[in-house]
Amino acid sequence: MSKNTAADIIHLHHGSGGQHMTALLNDVIFKHLDNPTLATRHDGAFLNLGGGTLAFSTDSYVISPIFFKGGNIGELAVNGTVNDLSMCGAEPKYLSLAFIIEEGLSLAAFEQIVISIKTAAQKAGVQVVTGDTKVVERGKGDKIYINTSGIGVVRPTAAISSARIAAGDAVLVNGALAAHGMAIMSQREGLSFESEILSDTTNLNFVVKELIETFGDKIKFLRDATRGGLASVLNEITTDCQLGINLLEKNIHVDTAVKSACELLGLDPVYVANEGVFVCIAEASVQEEVLAVLRKYQPAAMILGNVTEEHPSKVIMTSAFGGKRVVNPLVGEQLPRIC
Amino acid sequence: MSKNTAADIIHLHHGSGGQHMTALLNDVIFKHLDNPTLATRHDGAFLNLGGGTLAFSTDSYVISPIFFKGGNIGELAVNGTVNDLSMCGAEPKYLSLAFIIEEGLSLAAFEQIVISIKTAAQKAGVQVVTGDTKVVERGKGDKIYINTSGIGVVRPTAAISSARIAAGDAVLVNGALAAHGMAIMSQREGLSFESEILSDTTNLNFVVKELIETFGDKIKFLRDATRGGLASVLNEITTDCQLGINLLEKNIHVDTAVKSACELLGLDPVYVANEGVFVCIAEASVQEEVLAVLRKYQPAAMILGNVTEEHPSKVIMTSAFGGKRVVNPLVGEQLPRIC
Repeated sequence: MSKNTAADIIHLHHGSGGQHMTALLNDVIFKHLDNPTLATRHDGAFLNLGGGTLAFSTDSYVISPIFFKGGNIGELAVNGTVNDLSMCGAEPKYLSLAFIIEEGLSLAAFEQIVISIKTAAQKAGVQVVTGDTKVVERGKGDKIYINTSGIGVVRPTAAISSARIAAGDAVLVNGALAAHGMAIMSQREGLSFESEILSDTTNLNFVVKELIETFGDKIKFLRDATRGGLASVLNEITTDCQLGINLLEKNIHVDTAVKSACELLGLDPVYVANEGVFVCIAEASVQEEVLAVLRKYQPAAMILGNVTEEHPSKVIMTSAFGGKRVVNPLVGEQLPRIC
Repeated sequence: MSKNTAADIIHLHHGSGGQHMTALLNDVIFKHLDNPTLATRHDGAFLNLGGGTLAFSTDSYVISPIFFKGGNIGELAVNGTVNDLSMCGAEPKYLSLAFIIEEGLSLAAFEQIVISIKTAAQKAGVQVVTGDTKVVERGKGDKIYINTSGIGVVRPTAAISSARIAAGDAVLVNGALAAHGMAIMSQREGLSFESEILSDTTNLNFVVKELIETFGDKIKFLRDATRGGLASVLNEITTDCQLGINLLEKNIHVDTAVKSACELLGLDPVYVANEGVFVCIAEASVQEEVLAVLRKYQPAAMILGNVTEEHPSKVIMTSAFGGKRVVNPLVGEQLPRIC
């Protein structure tokens, strides 16, 4: 790549509120993201959502590197918040978008990120309706951090709540584990494998839509397994509902290259971050039908186990050989800045 | 201040999604900010707002220093987003709260910021309902950055739109200029003045409520004069509505100590950032009554001038001696990281 000149990079004055900032907004952000709501260019967006319950969610994305195999921070920032809203049983509708840019980021990289945001938003059917741009000095950030907050409308037949989880409910997962975390880690460590490991970042709103439209309140709980991985999510659930979860290790799917990377780096895939994996707790009576819906989207979906009264607040995994072990929540930081 | 030990500061593992993060959330964030919506601890919040139009706004706060005379980054992050919603003619209701913390921030400083957030939210009558915490390595941030996004319900009689601005409308300001920017600059430069300069950070939702309840659609436009100051806001307005604005310099109020600081640093107060100042464009027929309402909250409120067809897209200021000059928008970065 050729060296960037002064005109090719973001400077502090791009965050000033003055003419340079207006130019950056017009030349990069509004060029790609324009829609009638954003076009009003007020500090806030006006939204008509009708009645009903809203879901509201926020996440800041600080992933490093900002471009990774299978995606970049912009795509991740859209999908992550779309997925948080989806896990509320909501139809994601509107996003806010706030950049904290380190001085020196190339305009080309910034524009590529904005274009990915546009594409991911279109794919998920959401609109970016309001935003903010700040620039900090070199050494006070790391290229770019992005916050997206989102508003969705809770689907009328959704009743997602950990309070509804009961003994006997089925615990399902929609796909193979650990791809996102291992894509990032492999890139950071300079590892390569026979088959390339790609992040699993994707929008989950359409599979959730089908689950809720088909099964209504028989879907009791949804949570995406991001930071801390599957193990942390399941432990959060057991802590919340004061019930236990039994898992069958053989039903946890991890792709071959991902498994190799985990072994090489000494990581347990159940603790590794995902960006397209979620846990679904459903009434046992519909577990096979729920699995069939999940498999329409990802063939690696599995029934992992069930909820039990036997060991409250504990997740216990049964190995292929019948041994049992407690799956504790993540302690310490396994993979900093994974999302 | 005594040296912090390892247990007193934020570490990368506080952002892990695991046990340390849960402890930080419980011990600091939920301790101070708990409410029934946040207590569900889902990744998103469920909100019932009835029908009507919503306002949605986002801002990231990257101010340095994080503790300043008259406030801190936490208070600023609440007031700033409350004010952006207020400027939409909305009643601010709910905030999201997302931290990007640099490893090494003291837990005491973090807790003080969270307490200020709580106090500012209570004062403005808004609830923090969802959040996110990320931790980045030393040298990849600067103590703490905060994003708040907010949802408000647009007041039924509000009709805030730059498209409604017409020649003859009055241009008002609710108080004295440049206090926030000069409080920060004085602190950075180690300057002191006879009377201390305090940031003007405050919530503007109650004055806006009274304006809209009293004058309805006779209030045509509202915008807070933050980054880029009064000059940039007025230029944005004239650009949007393709009309001009006339200002009387003698009606622009700047406190004595603030004026001294501006002179010492060679800054024009109309370009300096404010955190409690807003511009109100109202029908001329009610300008005196609007002024009277503004003065109930801040005695320094003034009618600055009016909207004109004479010089489209230009802001022209008449000095005390009758001379006229064009007030251009801010070029370059005057005060980086002022909010």
